[in-house]
Amino acid sequence: MTFAVRYTAALTLDTAPTETAPPGPGEVELAPAYVGICGTDLHIFHGDMDARVSTPAVLGHEMSGRVVRVGPDVEEWQPGDAVTVMPLRWDGTCPACRSGNRHICQHLDFIGIDSPGAMQQRWTVPAATLVRLPDSLSLDRAALVEPTAVAVHDVGRAKVQDGERVVVVGGGPVGVLIALVARAAGAEVRLVELSDHRRALAENMGFTTWDPAAEDVPELVRQWTGDAGADIAFEVSGAAGGVDTAVEVLGVRGRLCLVAIHPRRREIDLHRFFWRELTLVGARLYDRSDFERAVGLVADGTVPADLLISKVVPLAEAPAAFEALETSGDVMKILVDCGNDERGASA
Amino acid sequence: MTFAVRYTAALTLDTAPTETAPPGPGEVELAPAYVGICGTDLHIFHGDMDARVSTPAVLGHEMSGRVVRVGPDVEEWQPGDAVTVMPLRWDGTCPACRSGNRHICQHLDFIGIDSPGAMQQRWTVPAATLVRLPDSLSLDRAALVEPTAVAVHDVGRAKVQDGERVVVVGGGPVGVLIALVARAAGAEVRLVELSDHRRALAENMGFTTWDPAAEDVPELVRQWTGDAGADIAFEVSGAAGGVDTAVEVLGVRGRLCLVAIHPRRREIDLHRFFWRELTLVGARLYDRSDFERAVGLVADGTVPADLLISKVVPLAEAPAAFEALETSGDVMKILVDCGNDERGASA
Ligand SMILES: NC(=O)c1ccc[n+]([C@@H]2O[C@H](COP(=O)([O-])OP(=O)(O)OC[C@H]3O[C@@H](n4cnc5c(N)ncnc54)[C@H](O)[C@@H]3O)[C@@H](O)[C@H]2O)c1
Ligand SMILES: NC(=O)c1ccc[n+]([C@@H]2O[C@H](COP(=O)([O-])OP(=O)(O)OC[C@H]3O[C@@H](n4cnc5c(N)ncnc54)[C@H](O)[C@@H]3O)[C@@H](O)[C@H]2O)c1
Ligand SMILES: [Zn+2]
Ligand SMILES: [Zn+2]
Repeated sequence: MTFAVRYTAALTLDTAPTETAPPGPGEVELAPAYVGICGTDLHIFHGDMDARVSTPAVLGHEMSGRVVRVGPDVEEWQPGDAVTVMPLRWDGTCPACRSGNRHICQHLDFIGIDSPGAMQQRWTVPAATLVRLPDSLSLDRAALVEPTAVAVHDVGRAKVQDGERVVVVGGGPVGVLIALVARAAGAEVRLVELSDHRRALAENMGFTTWDPAAEDVPELVRQWTGDAGADIAFEVSGAAGGVDTAVEVLGVRGRLCLVAIHPRRREIDLHRFFWRELTLVGARLYDRSDFERAVGLVADGTVPADLLISKVVPLAEAPAAFEALETSGDVMKILVDCGNDERGASA
Repeated sequence: MTFAVRYTAALTLDTAPTETAPPGPGEVELAPAYVGICGTDLHIFHGDMDARVSTPAVLGHEMSGRVVRVGPDVEEWQPGDAVTVMPLRWDGTCPACRSGNRHICQHLDFIGIDSPGAMQQRWTVPAATLVRLPDSLSLDRAALVEPTAVAVHDVGRAKVQDGERVVVVGGGPVGVLIALVARAAGAEVRLVELSDHRRALAENMGFTTWDPAAEDVPELVRQWTGDAGADIAFEVSGAAGGVDTAVEVLGVRGRLCLVAIHPRRREIDLHRFFWRELTLVGARLYDRSDFERAVGLVADGTVPADLLISKVVPLAEAPAAFEALETSGDVMKILVDCGNDERGASA
């Protein structure tokens, strides 16, 4: 018997037995090992995405695991292979796909939102979504590959260059990962974050951090940059105040990379965009090259996974973990252990 | 005796005699021939820029004219040379200047706003601001070089490529010039403009135009582009509604070039920037290469100056022309004739 965590209604998750059919042509059945809980999963849990999600829905798209069996026509993969999944399925025919931007396909199926996700003990996905993991990378750490791929994509969209000065606004998992990837690209990074706990964690990783509630961040940036302003700001807070900070810290021709999701319209100081010839660039998801580079960054320790993983909970406790995340911000990344990793969570 | 048009207080212009000192080292004295009235001049006239402008102020920065005398150390220029002026003076030392972006110097002196402008019969400027005009270009048409340089800069900032689909939002002088320069770069262009008069003028230049008050512009763009959306939108209206149109018409990875001045914050659909990976790029002024290219585009007729110049008024009637512009939008560009062009306005 295998189990799945299912979203059934706002603020309600259950665990239920699932049935698995043999994988079809081009498909692979996986045994998920670890699945990260991400902000989007929490939004779904809140009930904010009921228009998009059909219930009962199996959540989860930040995962690691092993191949269990492969369907007809699948030649590249063998049972036992360690993998992560790039959870995107595109139609291949829309204008976005035809222009080479399949990752933002106009009819994108994001697996784990629009179709069943990884928080279950068996999971069947298209073989084309698999990304190979090296043996050196333990499966718990590998669950961070997907959010790291987001960060790799964002740093690429912002064209971060060696020696540039970067301000990351919002020090949640995605913001911290962006800070890490930008630093690896040679940038000098400052992180702006409201939570003491999250700032302390980033300081542990060697970052200088600022508290926007207590400090005058634009003034600190002026001092830091000799009045020039930052080259790049990443808006990863999702807050109106975070957008303002990101705009204010930029120097002439600065680039603002918009990573966060802002469901509501925001008031922007467009005059500043004109006056300083700023650029704003939206960044969404990733492509395969981002994913492959992310595997390398997690495997080589550029991403200190052990500092980022706050807690690992068994599948049966996932519903309680979602509820706990509602009330406490003193965590970074929580992983769900699907009970499939023979080496155990301490590997 | 020479005269100048002077802004003395909100809604008040006069004409007054001026005294001219011989040009100093590195300076050149010009006889302005024609000076265009631009939106910024109207803002000053309204009193909206009193914090920046010290009165009495001589307005005007879109000009053509001839060299009258040159100061010590000026070797490149001779009396009688036909010129226009790139009205920028930078400090050369600020972070913007040091990063190669002198045109948006943090202490920019915009001649005609921050220091005396061209609406006078004698005008002394640094020789470094002069741009040579070819003999083939009549001086009235040459008064369009400065706004054309704006358009050249904007089309460059947006990186318009051959075959791209471009929507220009706002068909005032700057918007129409952008449409012309983008078309010359090989783009397919649509112009969105509220005024019947201005749309008709653009249609005369061969553009398809849309009225956003009567038509569903995003839907028209979808039909035009086979559901893909536009590659580029220029926001040249300065209106909140214009920003929305520019965002809505863009397809995946579309670029919004922000040209208009928005003194107030605007509500933006940032979610669209994230979802479609849009880019917004601010564009301000021009550099010398933009100016030189603009001279060519006005001289070779790519810019149909005769269609754009609605009216030429003598210097003494400039105050009345400003007042008329307050009440009627049925004009495009009005030139002030400073009485210095021996060939006359009909040249
Ligand atoms: N672009 C993409 O493809 C992509 C992928 C994943 C997540 N996201 C989005 O990225 C954002 C961040 O994701 P996350 O998982 O790190 O979220 P999170 O909510 O855990 O982190 C946001 C952080 O911003 C901080 N914050 C809030 N207001 C702030 C302010 N004014 N200044 C500074 N910090 C402030 C919060 O304290 C929090 O730590 C979310 O909006 C998420 O939806 C985008
Ligand atoms: N970036 C620069 O360096 C630079 C240089 C010059 C001018 N500008 C700015 O460019 C803008 C345009 O200049 P202009 O001289 O052509 O101004 P303008 O006021 O003559 O033209 C604006 C046009 O936009 C139209 N418009 C208003 N709302 C609209 C809407 N919702 N949709 C479509 N059209 C709409 C108006 O009818 C008008 O014709 C101004 O904001 C000006 O300050 C910027
Ligand atoms: Zn597609
Ligand atoms: Zn400067």
